[in-house]
Amino acid sequence: MESRRRCPARKQEGTTAFEKSVTMGWAIALHGGGGDIARTVTSERSELAQVGLRHCLEIGVAALRQSRSALDVSELVVRELENYPTFNAGKGSVLTAEGTVEMEACIMDGVTKRCGAVSGLSTVTNPISLARLVMEKTPHIYLAFDGAEKFARDHGVETASMENFITKENVERLQQAKEAHRVQIDFSTPTGSNCHQETVGCVVVDNQGNCAAATSTGGLVNKMAGRIGDTPIVGAGNYANHLCAVSATGRGEHIIRATVAHDVAALMEYKGLSLKEAAEYVIEHMEKGTAGLVAVSNKGEVTMVFNTSGMFRACAREDGYSELGVLA
Amino acid sequence: MESRRRCPARKQEGTTAFEKSVTMGWAIALHGGGGDIARTVTSERSELAQVGLRHCLEIGVAALRQSRSALDVSELVVRELENYPTFNAGKGSVLTAEGTVEMEACIMDGVTKRCGAVSGLSTVTNPISLARLVMEKTPHIYLAFDGAEKFARDHGVETASMENFITKENVERLQQAKEAHRVQIDFSTPTGSNCHQETVGCVVVDNQGNCAAATSTGGLVNKMAGRIGDTPIVGAGNYANHLCAVSATGRGEHIIRATVAHDVAALMEYKGLSLKEAAEYVIEHMEKGTAGLVAVSNKGEVTMVFNTSGMFRACAREDGYSELGVLA
Repeated sequence: MESRRRCPARKQEGTTAFEKSVTMGWAIALHGGGGDIARTVTSERSELAQVGLRHCLEIGVAALRQSRSALDVSELVVRELENYPTFNAGKGSVLTAEGTVEMEACIMDGVTKRCGAVSGLSTVTNPISLARLVMEKTPHIYLAFDGAEKFARDHGVETASMENFITKENVERLQQAKEAHRVQIDFSTPTGSNCHQETVGCVVVDNQGNCAAATSTGGLVNKMAGRIGDTPIVGAGNYANHLCAVSATGRGEHIIRATVAHDVAALMEYKGLSLKEAAEYVIEHMEKGTAGLVAVSNKGEVTMVFNTSGMFRACAREDGYSELGVLA
Repeated sequence: MESRRRCPARKQEGTTAFEKSVTMGWAIALHGGGGDIARTVTSERSELAQVGLRHCLEIGVAALRQSRSALDVSELVVRELENYPTFNAGKGSVLTAEGTVEMEACIMDGVTKRCGAVSGLSTVTNPISLARLVMEKTPHIYLAFDGAEKFARDHGVETASMENFITKENVERLQQAKEAHRVQIDFSTPTGSNCHQETVGCVVVDNQGNCAAATSTGGLVNKMAGRIGDTPIVGAGNYANHLCAVSATGRGEHIIRATVAHDVAALMEYKGLSLKEAAEYVIEHMEKGTAGLVAVSNKGEVTMVFNTSGMFRACAREDGYSELGVLA
């Protein structure tokens, strides 16, 4: 089995009755946020982010080779991204205007359309796994703030004191944002040096052609307490169905207004566009500098599109193709 | 002006260069929730709901005749619906499993795609107006729980003690739900008599062809504290763009998974379906008994569709057509 899955030629030559006739095998794509990277990200931080992306991609690829499901792999990879302090999600989450942390995440399984989402987490180590737990252990999809924290405790989920987020770097970043009187996404730091990536996300299609998407974020530096962005909004920052899986990053309010992730799926389903065409159509129709996304289709296609100066991104396909990039 | 707007014949005969060539004038539709009404709603409560719907429709129609914008009218009508204790939104909101109230609302302007949303409100008298305030007075779209309550206080919004919601009827309803071990939408009460409508919503197209949608809810009886439903999710329970405005009602988790409101818009834009075709397509593809919606198009069309046994609904068009109904 393993050797077959590693052999792209077989996929290209033809398919058996046991495979979807059009599948190209599994594919995975992840992002660590996008923005005006050329201007604002130090080369040191960019290096760190790329190391993290490569590591997380490898974990995802290994899991796919072990025939883990798309849903499992997307959660696994986003957990790893959350554990990297370089990225603004989980451990690396930024501070609200009140100096608190409010993390958000969403996970969705394409075939069943089951999904889970969380917002306003201040102590949960891996928000993406709590989102999955909401999906699996409640009659609901989306829990937020105190109710979500209580749910985490009731289920013995790993937590850490919010004090861990109050790092020197995070406090400075918030201070700079307050001095500049603005709510900022992570890259747009006043100094241009002390920046921090935004959302992380991972989309996966497994070799059954099942798609899944997972996205997690600490939100905006200096955001109002209580602010919910696009990440936990099914159809905006995160979405999967029978055709594709999409994870978006960028200015959350723009992504919500454009219902970015569902729009990609709708263009494929209703207008017959390819994954790449649909993703490009959506991103091109948004204000420049506001958004990017990674997406996979049930055929095993993968695309990574953005209208910002860069997006930390990586992808791999079963046929051996792989890519890792930062700038356009 | 007033007489012209009241004359349907003129609209049908032709249009001037100053009008959109296809508009049929303004239109408005509202709902007070849907579900298994035939089985669970007493005739007394049904009567009360119909009186409320008629009153709110008249307020909306009067405002449209005064050339108020679609956005203004949708907010105005949903405020009125929130003020009716018959409906599960604002004053009539139901209780969570903790015996608390957590109201949600969303408003969206089609032309600009500006939008505002709130969740987890326990004291704000008119959640829909707070959603509009979030849209107009913050860099964000969506505020929830403590942050939203604080924002309300900072802006002097009318509030009332949460104790006002702890009515005998509400406590009984929660008790029944707990005894039946289920999270229920309002109609599905164990006894079938002590029911309560769910979400309220209003969609409007003004005679400029601008669309707007507003939706508000108290959520589910016995929902987990912190649960967010479809109502505040842009693209799920509420959505408006240049083509149409949609407000959904029903089982929130189903509506989120199906991205109901944005799907109607996408079918019109990408597949060329009419408003009615798009709305029917979306609702027909959902599990029976789970959802309904009201929608208007920029051409002045209106449609009200549901796959439940009934939906409290009303609509009116500038040409004089009007409808009010409960059962299918």
